[in-house]
Amino acid sequence: MSEAVEIRAVHRADFQQWKQLWDGYNAFYGRTGDSALAPEVTLMTWSRFFDSYEPMHALVAEASARIVGLAHFLYHRSTIQLPPTCYLADLFTVEARRGQGVGRALIGAVYEHAKLAGSPRVYWQTHETNAVAMRLYDQVAERSGFVVYRRSV
Amino acid sequence: MSEAVEIRAVHRADFQQWKQLWDGYNAFYGRTGDSALAPEVTLMTWSRFFDSYEPMHALVAEASARIVGLAHFLYHRSTIQLPPTCYLADLFTVEARRGQGVGRALIGAVYEHAKLAGSPRVYWQTHETNAVAMRLYDQVAERSGFVVYRRSV
Amino acid sequence: MSEAVEIRAVHRADFQQWKQLWDGYNAFYGRTGDSALAPEVTLMTWSRFFDSYEPMHALVAEASARIVGLAHFLYHRSTIQLPPTCYLADLFTVEARRGQGVGRALIGAVYEHAKLAGSPRVYWQTHETNAVAMRLYDQVAERSGFVVYRRSV
Amino acid sequence: MSEAVEIRAVHRADFQQWKQLWDGYNAFYGRTGDSALAPEVTLMTWSRFFDSYEPMHALVAEASARIVGLAHFLYHRSTIQLPPTCYLADLFTVEARRGQGVGRALIGAVYEHAKLAGSPRVYWQTHETNAVAMRLYDQVAERSGFVVYRRSV
Repeated sequence: MSEAVEIRAVHRADFQQWKQLWDGYNAFYGRTGDSALAPEVTLMTWSRFFDSYEPMHALVAEASARIVGLAHFLYHRSTIQLPPTCYLADLFTVEARRGQGVGRALIGAVYEHAKLAGSPRVYWQTHETNAVAMRLYDQVAERSGFVVYRRSV
Repeated sequence: MSEAVEIRAVHRADFQQWKQLWDGYNAFYGRTGDSALAPEVTLMTWSRFFDSYEPMHALVAEASARIVGLAHFLYHRSTIQLPPTCYLADLFTVEARRGQGVGRALIGAVYEHAKLAGSPRVYWQTHETNAVAMRLYDQVAERSGFVVYRRSV
Repeated sequence: MSEAVEIRAVHRADFQQWKQLWDGYNAFYGRTGDSALAPEVTLMTWSRFFDSYEPMHALVAEASARIVGLAHFLYHRSTIQLPPTCYLADLFTVEARRGQGVGRALIGAVYEHAKLAGSPRVYWQTHETNAVAMRLYDQVAERSGFVVYRRSV
Repeated sequence: MSEAVEIRAVHRADFQQWKQLWDGYNAFYGRTGDSALAPEVTLMTWSRFFDSYEPMHALVAEASARIVGLAHFLYHRSTIQLPPTCYLADLFTVEARRGQGVGRALIGAVYEHAKLAGSPRVYWQTHETNAVAMRLYDQVAERSGFVVYRRSV
C-alpha cells in the first residue's frame, strides 16, 4: 500500500465515517434511494458490533486518520464442526483506495480473528459477475463451487 | 407422494434413525471413511438440536414410522435486516424416497418455521454441479447468482 | 382460579395489553416517571420475544380475552451443566387477579417450557422484603440461600 | 499483593492448572466425590471459553508463573436494558493466596471487560452464610437485597 493502513476494531466514535462507507457499500448492492436500508437497520447493526452478547464484529481500515475500508463478520454454528464458522458478511473499500491492498488486509485480519477465536473456517459470498472482487478472492481464498439459493418467506 | 409423509421436529428417540441418514448425507459430501466426521461432532450437533440456547433446529420426514428425510437449519444475524436469517445447512432424503416430494416438503416446513419465527429469508448452498438438487431448488427458491468463497485458517 | 386462565406464548397482537402489564410491573420496581424504562428498551425487549435468534421468551395468562399476567424468561449458559439454565426474569399479575393462581400457572408453564427445552433448572430473584411473592415461591421452588451482589460499571 | 499478580484471559495451555482450581472451586460447593461434576461438563465449559460464538469468558490470575485464581463470566440478555448483563458465574482463589487481593483484582478485570463490552452491570450470587467472601463483595459491589429461588425441572 502506498501509505500505512491500520486495521483495527471499530470504535463508537467512528460512526460518522463508518456510516459513509456503509452507505457506499449498500449503494453498490442497489440498496439506495427507495431501496435503501431502513435507518433502524443501520443503527441496530451498528449497536450489535458493541454488544458483547452478539458474535458480530466490525473491523475498519484507517489511513491518514480516515476510515478507508470496513469488514463485518459474524460467527455462527455449523453442523459439521464443533467450533463456529466465521461468515464475512460485508467488505468495502472506498473508491480512492481500491487496488492498494485494503481489502486484502481486512480479509487477513478477519482470518486472524477467526484463528484466535478457534474458528477453523472463514467464508463469504460474492456475485458471480463481480470479476474485480474475484481477482482478489481467488488469491486469498478458494472458490468453493457452491452457489447460493434463497427465498423470501 | 405415494404415501403420507409427516414433517416434524426431531425427537431424542430418533437418534439411531437420524444417525443413518446423517451418515448417508455426509457420505454424499465425501465425509466418509478416513474423512468421516468425528463422532464427537455428530454428538454435539445432535445435542444442539435440543439445546434451548442454540438457534439450531432439525426437522425429519417420517413415512410408515421410518425417518426418510432430514433438514437442519439455524438462525444467524444479518447486517442488513433486523431479524435473523435462516440458513438451511443440511437437507437429505433416503435414496428410496427421492423424487417423491420429501425434500420439497422439508424445505416448505423450514419456510414455515422461519416465517413464524419472524425471519424473512431462508438460504442455502448447493454445489454448482448438483443438477438433480437444483431441479427442485429452481422451483422453490431463487438462484441468487452469489457464489461461495472460503478459506481454512 | 375463579375462571379459566389460559397460559400461552405472547403474540404480536398482544402488544397494547402486554405493555400495560409491563408498565405496571416496572412501576412496582420503581421504574416509573423519571425513572421509567426508556421506550426503546421496551420496544427492543418486545422485539426479542419474536426474534428466533434470541433465547428470550414471553408467556401471558389470558382470562376472558384479557391478558392478566406475564412471564418473561431466557436461557443462558451455565458453567456447571451442559444445557442452559432458565432464568425467569419477570413475573407479574394484574392486581385484580392476584391470589387466584395466575402466577403459579405462569411459573408452571415456564417449568414446562424448560423441561421440554432440556434445561434442568429454572431460577429467579426476588427482593428479600417481598413477603407476598415469597409465600408463593416457597411453595413452588426452593429458596436457595444465595443472595445477589451487583455493580454498575 | 505480596508479589505481582497478572490478570489475563485464559489460554488453552492453562488447562491442567485451571483444572486444579476448578476442581477446588467445585469442591468448595460440595461438587466432589460422588457429587462431582461430570468430566464432560468440565470439558464443555472449557471449550466454551474458546468458542467465539459463546459469550462466556474466563480470566485467570497468574503469579510466579502459577495460576492462583480464576473468574468465569458470561453475558446474557436483560429485559430492562438494551445491552446484555454480565454474570460472574465463578470466582476462586487458591487457598495460599487468599486475602492478598487476587479476588478483588479478578472482579476488577471483569468490570473492565464489561465496561469495554458495553454491558452496564455485573452481578453474581453468593451464599448468605459466606461471610468471608462478603467482606470483599461489600467493598466492591452492592448487596442488592435480592435472593435466589430455584427449581429443578
